Amino acid sequence: MSKKNVIVAQSGGPTVAINASLAGVVQAVIQSENYNVVYGSIYGILGILENHILNLSEKAEEIPDFIETLKISPSMYLGSCRYKLPDYEDDDATYAFIFNQFKKYDIGAFFYIGGNDSMDTVSKLSHYGEQIGSDIRIIGIPKTIDNDLCITDHTPGYGSAAKYVASSILEVAHDTYIYSVKSVTIVEIMGRDAGWLTAASALARNSYNTAPHLIYFPEVAFDKDQFIADVKEQLSKRNNVIIAVSEGIRDKDGNYFSAAKPASDQFGHAQLSGAGKCLEYFIKEAINVKVRSIELNVLQRCGAHISSLTDIEESFSLGLHAVSCAASGMSKCMLIIKRISDSPYQTAITTADIKGIANEAKSIPRQWINEAGNDVTPDLVNYMAPLITGEPDISYQNGLPVYLPVTHLNTIN
Amino acid sequence: MSKKNVIVAQSGGPTVAINASLAGVVQAVIQSENYNVVYGSIYGILGILENHILNLSEKAEEIPDFIETLKISPSMYLGSCRYKLPDYEDDDATYAFIFNQFKKYDIGAFFYIGGNDSMDTVSKLSHYGEQIGSDIRIIGIPKTIDNDLCITDHTPGYGSAAKYVASSILEVAHDTYIYSVKSVTIVEIMGRDAGWLTAASALARNSYNTAPHLIYFPEVAFDKDQFIADVKEQLSKRNNVIIAVSEGIRDKDGNYFSAAKPASDQFGHAQLSGAGKCLEYFIKEAINVKVRSIELNVLQRCGAHISSLTDIEESFSLGLHAVSCAASGMSKCMLIIKRISDSPYQTAITTADIKGIANEAKSIPRQWINEAGNDVTPDLVNYMAPLITGEPDISYQNGLPVYLPVTHLNTIN
Repeated sequence: MSKKNVIVAQSGGPTVAINASLAGVVQAVIQSENYNVVYGSIYGILGILENHILNLSEKAEEIPDFIETLKISPSMYLGSCRYKLPDYEDDDATYAFIFNQFKKYDIGAFFYIGGNDSMDTVSKLSHYGEQIGSDIRIIGIPKTIDNDLCITDHTPGYGSAAKYVASSILEVAHDTYIYSVKSVTIVEIMGRDAGWLTAASALARNSYNTAPHLIYFPEVAFDKDQFIADVKEQLSKRNNVIIAVSEGIRDKDGNYFSAAKPASDQFGHAQLSGAGKCLEYFIKEAINVKVRSIELNVLQRCGAHISSLTDIEESFSLGLHAVSCAASGMSKCMLIIKRISDSPYQTAITTADIKGIANEAKSIPRQWINEAGNDVTPDLVNYMAPLITGEPDISYQNGLPVYLPVTHLNTIN
Repeated sequence: MSKKNVIVAQSGGPTVAINASLAGVVQAVIQSENYNVVYGSIYGILGILENHILNLSEKAEEIPDFIETLKISPSMYLGSCRYKLPDYEDDDATYAFIFNQFKKYDIGAFFYIGGNDSMDTVSKLSHYGEQIGSDIRIIGIPKTIDNDLCITDHTPGYGSAAKYVASSILEVAHDTYIYSVKSVTIVEIMGRDAGWLTAASALARNSYNTAPHLIYFPEVAFDKDQFIADVKEQLSKRNNVIIAVSEGIRDKDGNYFSAAKPASDQFGHAQLSGAGKCLEYFIKEAINVKVRSIELNVLQRCGAHISSLTDIEESFSLGLHAVSCAASGMSKCMLIIKRISDSPYQTAITTADIKGIANEAKSIPRQWINEAGNDVTPDLVNYMAPLITGEPDISYQNGLPVYLPVTHLNTIN
């Protein structure tokens, strides 16, 4: 029997570790006895629908240090999409087309690297595959800076974003402490409806840095009066108060705090922006103090020059494992990380049924947030701390980090 | 004759190289045959006025790797101030008090590391010293991310901020290129009324990255209609347009473009914010396209983990030279960098009379901006390129960069 090929795609929002998982898949296929060519679908599942396919085996041969440079390059080498598959009961033509493409490219396994929404695609394709009796393996590889996927201990991409957040808070603290006049600095952090990434701000604390002094999570209903009281108490104790706030904080009725009007994307997520600005206005109204708000914005998800080696290596391993799982006959699953111990930090890679992962989100357990709802507990610090450790070896040319060119994406002319 | 002591202070806004100049002063005094103890004035000149003085010679002995860690630590080890000395014709009591403090601490030289406003202080103290026949050397060491000081080829701190800006634009480009839907991303960059730091965005261009596609400078009057025409033209050529804009852009009548009302600080600088947000609104009004604006904010001036080795080493050398200049009898001057050649990059350190530097600002020469006023010229690229090269050796502990503790600043409790 001749060896089948595999196809891989990336979807959702960028992280700096999602290319490490892709590098793992490419390396595993190149070294595999079970598979032949590894193809990449450009712009997520859309590449399969629009026949926009890249031969990654060829790229790996042509480009020097392809695997190593891909591993540390930010964002998505294959491009992304935010495309939701129709239900196949409503429209099975799309599914038929996809499986026809699989046949055309002699595909034995499809890997989708993504977050909640991408796992929805894995789940739907798996079910359709079962219905038509296909033996093509459909496997999800997790990624999201939000760390909100169920069952896996944490998500690839989270550790690096957490490292970016913690180091930024530390540097902002140095920037803030130099003035003897009282000030409040608010740092708005991503994470949608989960506070994991905001919690990582606490990792900035060390022998001399007490910031952040207050942390606000989507998991705890935000109360404006309590917030002002918290800030006043902090200002009575120190000159320069630094606050970390999640973009996804909501009041007790579930309304987002946002200076701008929330819109919705195709998956029904509110487009969040402005929680930090909003808290800035609250303080300006109530307290006579210098206030500044900082939005870390997309750099927290694409700042590859300060990524976590632990995160990059785990993401790479997940890619490697995905290929061996497919070869051993597994399908309809997502790769997950199981934690064996915090200290020394030890993990194992295994798989979980895609059911129960897709479209579900994991919040911070309430007992990992302090009673007042404005700080982390030591248990949460112990959980996060190992994930940001280690620094990958980044090459610089002309003063800038060297990443893999993405000239195959037709967005660049 | 017994050896005199020196005192050093830092003032104005932070950069990641200002501590390297401080490290240079400390090292030079420790090794000097002319000077004894090096004192640090906490919170700029205010530390002398309030008798808040740190013995840096002791610190250097007590703290392991003091000089090396200080060199790469962001912001200001001694704290800062934004204090403007009164004119001594109006109030010479403040001056008398400062020179009395110099006498008390047996000071032979005072070094002030800062930007335009700090050079105003150097100028005033020098003049007063002359009037009273003091032989205390008063010397300025430049720093500002804005690169807007006259006479010096460039300012310490600029190269590192420029490297932060260029690498951020490169990473934002990777983040943006992954979507096949058209989008405009606006990145707002600091620099007050000079476009030097915004121009550094052009250094992000490489073999595959064409971003930024448009650059807007304070040096060219901003025209809203022309801007919309520029963006439409870019959108006709590519999917993902990235725009770099200075916080200080103004219309032909000199009005800032800002979503918020400009306030003023003690030196009469407008508090700029919102140029990026403002351009975002202009596009939303005129073009049906996805738009996002990103404000690099204070991280561009405190992101020490991605500083430029060229910048750090030059800043350190300026500190060393300042001490030998003082020992050789110089005063009433600022250290400056002279460029000998672009390629290979060669510079020399010399001094300039403080007159003509204080309170003057240097803009980008018009011929270094293209005719359309929306991009740099190759000459400007050649000027900037050497300044961001090289990476200092940063140590990491628990996943975070190791900087020097600032527990002596009383803002931390």
